[in-house]
Amino acid sequence: MSSDNCAALFTQYLSFWEQLTPDQQDFLCRSTREVHYAKGASVHRGDRQCVGVLLIKSGQLRTYMLSEEGRDVTLYRLFAGDVCILSASCVLDAITFAVCTDAEEDAEVLVINASAFHQLADENIYVKCFGYQLATTRFSDVMWAMQQILFMGVDKRLAIFLWDEISKSGSSEVKMTHEQIARYIGSAREVVTRMLKYFASDGIVELSRGGVRILDRKKLQNLLS
Amino acid sequence: MSSDNCAALFTQYLSFWEQLTPDQQDFLCRSTREVHYAKGASVHRGDRQCVGVLLIKSGQLRTYMLSEEGRDVTLYRLFAGDVCILSASCVLDAITFAVCTDAEEDAEVLVINASAFHQLADENIYVKCFGYQLATTRFSDVMWAMQQILFMGVDKRLAIFLWDEISKSGSSEVKMTHEQIARYIGSAREVVTRMLKYFASDGIVELSRGGVRILDRKKLQNLLS
Repeated sequence: MSSDNCAALFTQYLSFWEQLTPDQQDFLCRSTREVHYAKGASVHRGDRQCVGVLLIKSGQLRTYMLSEEGRDVTLYRLFAGDVCILSASCVLDAITFAVCTDAEEDAEVLVINASAFHQLADENIYVKCFGYQLATTRFSDVMWAMQQILFMGVDKRLAIFLWDEISKSGSSEVKMTHEQIARYIGSAREVVTRMLKYFASDGIVELSRGGVRILDRKKLQNLLS
Repeated sequence: MSSDNCAALFTQYLSFWEQLTPDQQDFLCRSTREVHYAKGASVHRGDRQCVGVLLIKSGQLRTYMLSEEGRDVTLYRLFAGDVCILSASCVLDAITFAVCTDAEEDAEVLVINASAFHQLADENIYVKCFGYQLATTRFSDVMWAMQQILFMGVDKRLAIFLWDEISKSGSSEVKMTHEQIARYIGSAREVVTRMLKYFASDGIVELSRGGVRILDRKKLQNLLS
């Protein structure tokens, strides 16, 4: 990346930017590239790769755990302005687990090379601290997701999810497959299908080929609390 | 705590100790007290308290998530030499969730006052970095626990748990209630009871009042892989 462009962007994203020497700033810029991920593309998969630190300029990424049998549990989603460090677990010694990240929507991402970030974290305590603080923020996201998955019934999680989606979009239709919904709420497709049929029999929703239409917002809202 | 005693202990536990000014070292010692927790005692409960940073000298603590209905999922256990930062979630801004910790065995613990640690973390980047690095280590522990809970069948988790316990103790009996075992493996008592009965009907274990006796190690071992 060109130095001017880089400095302007990094000042926004990286709280340690001002703590770097000019040489370190230059090194960081030279170690960063812009990558376009098409919707559905895999950004990184477990511990097989060490992609680097991701700065999301636009679009949406999704980070999830994957079991050996292919079961997939969403941990968090990342949007414009977010920085993703778990894609660089190899650069922070205290991270000993591996997660996967996909592009949920087309995404423009700045990728800082993993070994360059590692080198800077070794040289500069502010870079190291930034990395661990970011990891701790994601820890909080993950704990929230886990609390939902472990302690909240699927009916409630599904109702909250549908409510959030129609609130965001302003439409009364959620255009997603049962498979996709299951991933977002950390459940299995069959469980979501069964629960949606139950909601439908109760007149809360109507199932269509392309997704789910909410018929009775009041009943749906009653499920939230 | 007396300064000499304190310095000797903190050099072992706290990687930032040498980065503190003499005044900061003194302040940290004066802000630390020794606490004895009897087996079963509550060390901290969710976000209601901010106990501080815990340095475990001996014994065992257990950290868990608690649902509103009282369901309890073990996240990790802490032993002599471990440092616990999540009991001081109030001192690290990036930690926005609350967990509970109990003494699983009698424990001798050094407790660093939460607001003193907060002040030092604000003054000294090495203290802050230590805190977030420690939180990230626990994040790794939690991810391991979650992978077990979400992706592994109860039969396998129970078999692994029993195997670990008899390997550690050298005895063929695990003296715990089904309730306790359920907590350790992140399941419910009824589920554990059902699975133990199944193991018993298979001749793997024998159930007694005080716990579980392993009858067939070979069969138990077959369940591990």
